[in-house]
Amino acid sequence: MKEYDLAIIGGGCTGLGAAVYSARFNMKTIVFGGRLGGLIQDTHLVENYPGFVRLTGYELFQKLLKHTQDYKDLVDINEEFVKDVKKIKNGFEIIGDKTKVKAKTVLFATGTRRKKLDVPGEKEFANRGVSYCATCDSVLFKNKTCIMVGGSDSAAKEGLLLSEHAKKVYIVYRKEKIHPEPINMKRVEAAMKKGKIEIINNTNVKEIKGDKFVTHVIFDKPYKGSKEFKCEGVFIEIGHIVESELAKKLGVKTNSEGEILIDSDSKTNIPGIYAGGDVIARDWKQAIVGVAEGVLATNSAYNYIQEENVKNEKD
Amino acid sequence: MKEYDLAIIGGGCTGLGAAVYSARFNMKTIVFGGRLGGLIQDTHLVENYPGFVRLTGYELFQKLLKHTQDYKDLVDINEEFVKDVKKIKNGFEIIGDKTKVKAKTVLFATGTRRKKLDVPGEKEFANRGVSYCATCDSVLFKNKTCIMVGGSDSAAKEGLLLSEHAKKVYIVYRKEKIHPEPINMKRVEAAMKKGKIEIINNTNVKEIKGDKFVTHVIFDKPYKGSKEFKCEGVFIEIGHIVESELAKKLGVKTNSEGEILIDSDSKTNIPGIYAGGDVIARDWKQAIVGVAEGVLATNSAYNYIQEENVKNEKD
Repeated sequence: MKEYDLAIIGGGCTGLGAAVYSARFNMKTIVFGGRLGGLIQDTHLVENYPGFVRLTGYELFQKLLKHTQDYKDLVDINEEFVKDVKKIKNGFEIIGDKTKVKAKTVLFATGTRRKKLDVPGEKEFANRGVSYCATCDSVLFKNKTCIMVGGSDSAAKEGLLLSEHAKKVYIVYRKEKIHPEPINMKRVEAAMKKGKIEIINNTNVKEIKGDKFVTHVIFDKPYKGSKEFKCEGVFIEIGHIVESELAKKLGVKTNSEGEILIDSDSKTNIPGIYAGGDVIARDWKQAIVGVAEGVLATNSAYNYIQEENVKNEKD
Repeated sequence: MKEYDLAIIGGGCTGLGAAVYSARFNMKTIVFGGRLGGLIQDTHLVENYPGFVRLTGYELFQKLLKHTQDYKDLVDINEEFVKDVKKIKNGFEIIGDKTKVKAKTVLFATGTRRKKLDVPGEKEFANRGVSYCATCDSVLFKNKTCIMVGGSDSAAKEGLLLSEHAKKVYIVYRKEKIHPEPINMKRVEAAMKKGKIEIINNTNVKEIKGDKFVTHVIFDKPYKGSKEFKCEGVFIEIGHIVESELAKKLGVKTNSEGEILIDSDSKTNIPGIYAGGDVIARDWKQAIVGVAEGVLATNSAYNYIQEENVKNEKD
């Protein structure tokens, strides 16, 4: 079994940024990235990774990957999901889809996955009108009427992008008021003036209906006199589920949302286990902050390994 | 007097990165950068800002500045040092060398300044053999014998750069063993094999001597039988002093080193005052981490201003 100093679980911004630093600490490093690049890939426009005025999420991912590959003597990148992590003597065993390795330390950079609406028709019409990624699918909805379900900054951004292609986008939000970043709220307001976006607040989608493709949705309350709303695209951007199951199984502490608790050096409650990025407990998550947390984790891992070496020499 | 939502004191990586986010929160922002770009400018090679495989510190500064300037409607950049910050009703008054402004919140991104050796001859021979920046001055020491005083990663990196120009570089360190990042230690060892670098441990420089330019230094113990050591260049890279005086005057809490204490949202103990970057309490300081701290501060400042607005409406 191959042995590493640090196993990074997750190949998003946090994992890739951490890999660069891990190599600079001269640590043998493996990145498990079943979905290399992570969720940033679906963001069509990143304007807030300081240093890059604007680029696509895919471009940012490629830049981080290229940076990691610059240390390929020290960093292995395995495009596999991790099924289990076990505590063993002097470290951990990481069991991927195909590969099993040992590592002295582990960084959970596992991020989040998209939440589903869980309504009838959602599964049935996936890729036939239902989408979770405007960045990926907007162009397929040219001149069509679409709804964007959600009220977050991501929902607004995705709605804005979609409105550049679609005939009109209705942002459907279950609460009182959508809450994007102010700069994106301004953009939404501008699109509303042009008639490209309209907001339907205090409304839930109860069902998605169609024949071959989506034809309409059913709201939980009437809009302009009817609960039936005609649309050809249903975009769902309602948040994320934290991917902390493997960490929790190891005894890593989380908050009530399942987000991993870390200190200012990205240490969890378990020695040798670190976490960073969207999987950790923060109200407001940003790629640049995740990268910094990953970077801090590598320093903690390096110091931990040095200390363990000293202890083992004494034994 | 001009009024801002956020005044950022310091125009290094942290301050510039924060300005981008501040603008995205639609906050009127001023950056006071008496030395715009900060200390990163003197770093000849940055390989550890994830996303950029390698670039000079000056290039990184320019990229961050360009990013900030993309929001010039919201961000003013004043190339002035700040003399004082005072608490006033509903905010702070910031007194620069030329400009006085009001701001609802303040971010200290004031960083550090270089430590001096404080030995006879240091001041006298400044710019006549004595330098604090190999990045800036290496080329002036082509084929000359130089010493690099210090044992940190910066000292090693600066020593390596200097060795590309100088005849030979002697790294003079007061303690047992220099402690650069492992990757840079390897590079130092490679340069030692080539006879370009030699390390003199457990030794202090007591005096710098010369006529028009530096001719030699005096060590506190003999090296190869003599305390007198002939060299034409004396580079000093012995650490930094934290620039937290203005913050301390306002009552901001620091540790015994004078480093500002912040929480995981970059808040200090005083509402409306935030800090990030090299000025805060951390053992290991990195540009990417400072940027993330600055970014988190803008979110905290934005939330604080929103809450204050609600309070003021109630009053």
